[in-house]
Amino acid sequence: MKTWEQIANIVKAQGVEYVFGIGDTDLHLFADQLDGLTAINLRYEGSAPLMAMAYSRLTGKPGVCSGSSGPGVASLVPGVLEAYSGCVPLVIFAPSVDLQTEGMGEFQECDQRKMMEPITKWSERIPYVERIPWFVERAFSIAMNGQPGPVFLEMPINIGGKLTSGIIVDAEPYEEYRTIRKIRVSGDPELISQAVELISLAKHPVVIAGNGAISSGAQDEFREFIELQGLPFLTTPGGRGIVEETHPLALGVCGIYRTEHGKQYYKDADLVISIGSRNEGFQSHSFADFPDGAKFLQIDISPFEIGRHWKPDVAVVGDAKLVLQQINTVIREKYPEKENYLESIRIKNLIKSKKNYENQVDKECLTEEIPIPAKRIVHEVSQVFGKNTILASENGSQDTWSYCYPYYTVQEGSICIPVAEQTCMGMGVVGAIIAKLVRPDKKSV
Amino acid sequence: MKTWEQIANIVKAQGVEYVFGIGDTDLHLFADQLDGLTAINLRYEGSAPLMAMAYSRLTGKPGVCSGSSGPGVASLVPGVLEAYSGCVPLVIFAPSVDLQTEGMGEFQECDQRKMMEPITKWSERIPYVERIPWFVERAFSIAMNGQPGPVFLEMPINIGGKLTSGIIVDAEPYEEYRTIRKIRVSGDPELISQAVELISLAKHPVVIAGNGAISSGAQDEFREFIELQGLPFLTTPGGRGIVEETHPLALGVCGIYRTEHGKQYYKDADLVISIGSRNEGFQSHSFADFPDGAKFLQIDISPFEIGRHWKPDVAVVGDAKLVLQQINTVIREKYPEKENYLESIRIKNLIKSKKNYENQVDKECLTEEIPIPAKRIVHEVSQVFGKNTILASENGSQDTWSYCYPYYTVQEGSICIPVAEQTCMGMGVVGAIIAKLVRPDKKSV
Amino acid sequence: MKTWEQIANIVKAQGVEYVFGIGDTDLHLFADQLDGLTAINLRYEGSAPLMAMAYSRLTGKPGVCSGSSGPGVASLVPGVLEAYSGCVPLVIFAPSVDLQTEGMGEFQECDQRKMMEPITKWSERIPYVERIPWFVERAFSIAMNGQPGPVFLEMPINIGGKLTSGIIVDAEPYEEYRTIRKIRVSGDPELISQAVELISLAKHPVVIAGNGAISSGAQDEFREFIELQGLPFLTTPGGRGIVEETHPLALGVCGIYRTEHGKQYYKDADLVISIGSRNEGFQSHSFADFPDGAKFLQIDISPFEIGRHWKPDVAVVGDAKLVLQQINTVIREKYPEKENYLESIRIKNLIKSKKNYENQVDKECLTEEIPIPAKRIVHEVSQVFGKNTILASENGSQDTWSYCYPYYTVQEGSICIPVAEQTCMGMGVVGAIIAKLVRPDKKSV
Amino acid sequence: MKTWEQIANIVKAQGVEYVFGIGDTDLHLFADQLDGLTAINLRYEGSAPLMAMAYSRLTGKPGVCSGSSGPGVASLVPGVLEAYSGCVPLVIFAPSVDLQTEGMGEFQECDQRKMMEPITKWSERIPYVERIPWFVERAFSIAMNGQPGPVFLEMPINIGGKLTSGIIVDAEPYEEYRTIRKIRVSGDPELISQAVELISLAKHPVVIAGNGAISSGAQDEFREFIELQGLPFLTTPGGRGIVEETHPLALGVCGIYRTEHGKQYYKDADLVISIGSRNEGFQSHSFADFPDGAKFLQIDISPFEIGRHWKPDVAVVGDAKLVLQQINTVIREKYPEKENYLESIRIKNLIKSKKNYENQVDKECLTEEIPIPAKRIVHEVSQVFGKNTILASENGSQDTWSYCYPYYTVQEGSICIPVAEQTCMGMGVVGAIIAKLVRPDKKSV
Repeated sequence: MKTWEQIANIVKAQGVEYVFGIGDTDLHLFADQLDGLTAINLRYEGSAPLMAMAYSRLTGKPGVCSGSSGPGVASLVPGVLEAYSGCVPLVIFAPSVDLQTEGMGEFQECDQRKMMEPITKWSERIPYVERIPWFVERAFSIAMNGQPGPVFLEMPINIGGKLTSGIIVDAEPYEEYRTIRKIRVSGDPELISQAVELISLAKHPVVIAGNGAISSGAQDEFREFIELQGLPFLTTPGGRGIVEETHPLALGVCGIYRTEHGKQYYKDADLVISIGSRNEGFQSHSFADFPDGAKFLQIDISPFEIGRHWKPDVAVVGDAKLVLQQINTVIREKYPEKENYLESIRIKNLIKSKKNYENQVDKECLTEEIPIPAKRIVHEVSQVFGKNTILASENGSQDTWSYCYPYYTVQEGSICIPVAEQTCMGMGVVGAIIAKLVRPDKKSV
Repeated sequence: MKTWEQIANIVKAQGVEYVFGIGDTDLHLFADQLDGLTAINLRYEGSAPLMAMAYSRLTGKPGVCSGSSGPGVASLVPGVLEAYSGCVPLVIFAPSVDLQTEGMGEFQECDQRKMMEPITKWSERIPYVERIPWFVERAFSIAMNGQPGPVFLEMPINIGGKLTSGIIVDAEPYEEYRTIRKIRVSGDPELISQAVELISLAKHPVVIAGNGAISSGAQDEFREFIELQGLPFLTTPGGRGIVEETHPLALGVCGIYRTEHGKQYYKDADLVISIGSRNEGFQSHSFADFPDGAKFLQIDISPFEIGRHWKPDVAVVGDAKLVLQQINTVIREKYPEKENYLESIRIKNLIKSKKNYENQVDKECLTEEIPIPAKRIVHEVSQVFGKNTILASENGSQDTWSYCYPYYTVQEGSICIPVAEQTCMGMGVVGAIIAKLVRPDKKSV
Repeated sequence: MKTWEQIANIVKAQGVEYVFGIGDTDLHLFADQLDGLTAINLRYEGSAPLMAMAYSRLTGKPGVCSGSSGPGVASLVPGVLEAYSGCVPLVIFAPSVDLQTEGMGEFQECDQRKMMEPITKWSERIPYVERIPWFVERAFSIAMNGQPGPVFLEMPINIGGKLTSGIIVDAEPYEEYRTIRKIRVSGDPELISQAVELISLAKHPVVIAGNGAISSGAQDEFREFIELQGLPFLTTPGGRGIVEETHPLALGVCGIYRTEHGKQYYKDADLVISIGSRNEGFQSHSFADFPDGAKFLQIDISPFEIGRHWKPDVAVVGDAKLVLQQINTVIREKYPEKENYLESIRIKNLIKSKKNYENQVDKECLTEEIPIPAKRIVHEVSQVFGKNTILASENGSQDTWSYCYPYYTVQEGSICIPVAEQTCMGMGVVGAIIAKLVRPDKKSV
Repeated sequence: MKTWEQIANIVKAQGVEYVFGIGDTDLHLFADQLDGLTAINLRYEGSAPLMAMAYSRLTGKPGVCSGSSGPGVASLVPGVLEAYSGCVPLVIFAPSVDLQTEGMGEFQECDQRKMMEPITKWSERIPYVERIPWFVERAFSIAMNGQPGPVFLEMPINIGGKLTSGIIVDAEPYEEYRTIRKIRVSGDPELISQAVELISLAKHPVVIAGNGAISSGAQDEFREFIELQGLPFLTTPGGRGIVEETHPLALGVCGIYRTEHGKQYYKDADLVISIGSRNEGFQSHSFADFPDGAKFLQIDISPFEIGRHWKPDVAVVGDAKLVLQQINTVIREKYPEKENYLESIRIKNLIKSKKNYENQVDKECLTEEIPIPAKRIVHEVSQVFGKNTILASENGSQDTWSYCYPYYTVQEGSICIPVAEQTCMGMGVVGAIIAKLVRPDKKSV
């Protein structure tokens, strides 16, 4: 078995269906020979990490991409930075310079690992042909577990006299292709109790669903959570689509990405419950909308994110899906006779103001203005596409609100492909392509 | 309030009682003015991180130490490397060069952060006087949470025109001194079930207790765990003392650090249960004693350590204390009528062979050989000191087994101060000093 | 004076006429207000470093470019890598995150300095408003002196309470705008003697002119050097254009970039004289054409490059221009009655074989093949454009030889804009644009 | 030939006579088997870099030291930082972790290269047994050339299946042991002219001789330079001993390290000529003694140091020895009839005030005070030891001036072993030991 053939097989064993990158790299040549693994061959590596991000968002699996050595790896940097910022599990492969000439300044020699270090969780070289399985499996494990993120793995063209490229020399046979498991963690039961206590004491709680809630696959648990307690929710761009924006409790995207009445509910909150979000300045409109005096409950997979911005009153570290299960269980046990949230006055008012706001936007978008304003286009696109649609967001001059609810309303069965805080450009086009590739059952816009 | 005075106050708010380092740094000057915080002033910074490690081991709190700029920070490197390897939560402070001359090559200018980066979890500069509380609180949070470890924080002598040293210029008043909480995580309930299943199927299980089990404070849960199921256990040097070595199920220290019959139980195991250990080569005596074909259950706080060495059949990521609680609960529910482990044939045999081995060592140590062999000295020291003793380990030519059970037997109420895989020298003396300082109620050896 | 205004003024004082980058950064806003400094505003930062490289090649001055924070800086990476590989003096500016929120994960926060570190000579932050002049002047000094290369300088939006962006707060007045001088170094006279000795003993010497010979401005000295001794020369892609390829001693581009008879002269050499080249594998066609047994004289600005690939018999560290002056002086003194090189038999033969080869290529390019082969197009372009033309090279499937002499012959008064060993794409278009901008007197292709 | 045996042979080929470090490393085992190379075996690595520094100072050769893996390398950090700060050429070797387990967290695994990166010029791993000669020769070349400094080289215990330790597996035979040459550079002749012009215009010039002047071996050229023009000189601690302090033009150590009348000459200067010094704050007593309005001529081997602190009016980059030769030549040509400097009024006055100051100190040191003050001890030591003595400096509370002239006067034939700006402790003892080892012909104090 060839070295890159072995890598392609281990990639396939993870259930990954596509690798993205330049077509003439060894990984792609071998990937194409395997049933169930397809190489998507690009002319320019720059889009590969964005494609892998979109793939990961749509499937919940890690995304895999590759670059050719030197400038190829350099071209990946903007997209990998975005994935790092957005905590998307990517595994990135590249060949690197021949160890027989390393340090001599040969063609395309550069320090690829250092280039990738500040934008990945792990940036390593396979130093030994026999270590390929260990390194590749570990790459997937690190990308997926804890706070997910990209990892980089390079393999020199020639290690210890063994060519790894050019399909020439063999790797050791590798008995078993293991699938690396995602290992989830729960919250500390004591902290779960404190969290429930905090929620039950709040009069005006509001929930923020971030990217972490979606990447843990907590959609069902989240829906149960907000409905059990009647909790109005906003999403960050990364959390969008966790529950459809037509849901009575949905207040749209938070912070700078408007909705007039969503802002109001946020600002008046006496408890903010953040699930898988970094809560950076956009959320509070650089503190302009900050709910002064509110308590703060933070749920996050990573202790590194706890209190990074605001100081939580209660913080639960754990996988969003499992933590919400824990909270829902405690709530159901403790408050078995909770009323239907649709009966509460707060929610009735909320539904009313939501309806008013939607009507106002409908009217706004009936404009006959020429040139047609972006918001009208987006609004009509939203209505035409409706349910079961995948929305890939682009950045640019219109981004701040025109893509957002209620101009564009994410409806049932829909998925969003966002970019992260770095907001690099290009995801609009790339995301739509991948959406069609991976989920042909859904519409894509 | 002065800048370093503010830092000393935040340190104190964490419940930390000592800071270790050179006496003429600002942190020490201010620490000494605070009730409840004492500066231990050394002539040489090199011992400061080891002292802080010993302090942390004995109290469960983070250790705090400091260095003067330049060579002072450089002198900390060996000890900090040891703490990093041993996952000990340290917060390390140092002043750094004046921003008004940074880059000019002034007295003791060097890149302290880069020096500390490869051996800490976080190596940062306080860039702004107003940010002192954020950085110091975050330093403690990062040191203690997730996989614990050292963090480094430097503050330039002059930030933005404000002197931070020389006791001249004020920091903003800081309203509240928050105590950073340790946030624990539990295991995924599904994985807990799989773990219990694995244990219940094993005929010859053996447990390895590592440093992580002690640093999570899981002593009681561990005792219940082994007694519930009658699980013989070994410890790594870092896990030593979790339960006294006089316990019937205790097999001593694992791997290269002998005990003849302990090795045998390890080698014959059909299940190895590792709790908070990296399972590196010493444990299996570089695989010489490896139990071929055994299943592997790994429990660790960090997904980064999962499968780093062996590939687990089941891996639970979580705090050892909480995970053992979860496992114990499931076992008690599932097997409510489990027999007393002392009644099982396996354990009866084990106790017999343990007794035999102890007798053999007793005889061995009655030698009248001159010069007196190290093992006899250690053996007699062990008997003289007995219970409630703190043992600080040193490295050296005799280290491989003479400090170990049954030459030295860790008895009830005792604590061990180990070094980590780097095995730097000096902990023997330093640990004993700190033991007397922090736990004057215990004997120290 | 505003902070970025001050930077723009210091840039201007270096004689730099253009800054390249995204138009809405502060540097560009202020650059546009200064006579003699023009901001070239792009839609995408990726081209900015390539433009700055082309600018530097054409003017001998450092190139200046900028990126917006986060993904903007990430987009610069491929171009900066190319400049680093090609030893092109660039000064790159970017804003960075507000120190009041650094570490909190705010919008576009990322470690820009670390991203730039592996691909620059110096990657720093301006930590203090008063230090702006020191850092900017130093950036130019480091970029230009020693082995030239790119440097990166970021300035946080807010330093020590002083906003640097948003045109709000003033920098200290800065009395004098100094022009940073390029400081040249000469060779050790003893080594110069040894070099001349080596040359005078050689029967079949051949010269390789690399990028370093052009970037030191050694065109005149080089012409004198080869003519004094009758030395046939090849160039690397980076050294191309140092003397026109119509010169009798010109053998075209070296190594993999053919010319049949050039290869032969190289292969048969008993002395290779390398001036400002890294002599990597392309030159010797991965050693396929290596002149076994030949002596090696290496002239380079940087001791780091000496012996990096082959081991020189004599190595002179120094600026190519000054070293060639030294050598020419010694040769003129030592051999005052040297014959005209055109009279030597070796050179007469060389001219003959050169002519033959050119005729053969002319014939080859008269082909009527459809589709028209690239070589015919290039050949005709070469004849149409002729003298005083700027050639910007692109990479791609045809690059290995079709751009090269004698398909394309660099004639008198012409300049080449190459890429470096990393061979990133895009310079063809970008270089041509900059050529028109900077040298409207020349034709551009 | 074994791998480390090969390394020992290449070390020996450089003319190096000692390697310093822990005795049980492979380098030391093989060094001891070679005639002409001796392993100095220490109990603690910390002193090894200081010994190598002292060796380099006394011999002008690079110093070689080694550490064992992990904590051994960590222990080298303070000394290597000092050598980096003091631009001392050291080559540091260490074994590193087995590539078959790299990344698994095995015994003493840590990132040694990153630990050494911020304090060396080059920190690399030998990735391939066949590359040993390239890497080791390059290490010496980089350490010695350009601005000298330490470099670090690690070799894994097992590379590509070939054991490098344990004396088991062979390296390729290596035909030739080359001695790496120090390659010097001269100044630009144009700048030399400007420098001479500046000197000839000055009325009160003063010279600062730094460490770089000594490390280039410019003692003779320096003496000629000051005597040709009658230039009073001070030294930094690193430049001390370039010419004996009993010389009429000697003003002692500069800056904070007093001599009352030396300070005065410095402060009143209208031209400061710095040769191989960083001119950091100690020199000008943090600018308290700065000669306002003086011109500044800077001579340094590295363009990186030019204008790092003050902005020079003329800067010459080049080896001090060659640059002073160039300057002396121009001066002799241009001013052939220069008077003897001892005849000038300025120098006559200087000699008088020097005598007065020495008398005053003599009187001061006649004190019968109890306890005997350090200065009296030093003074008497100075008189007892006299000429041909090696002085190794220690730091501590008395360091600021008591070791300095005229308390201790460096006399003819004497050498000083200083520490650099980092001023780490220990050189006093270590330096004296090495002095006796390397130069038994001289007295050592």
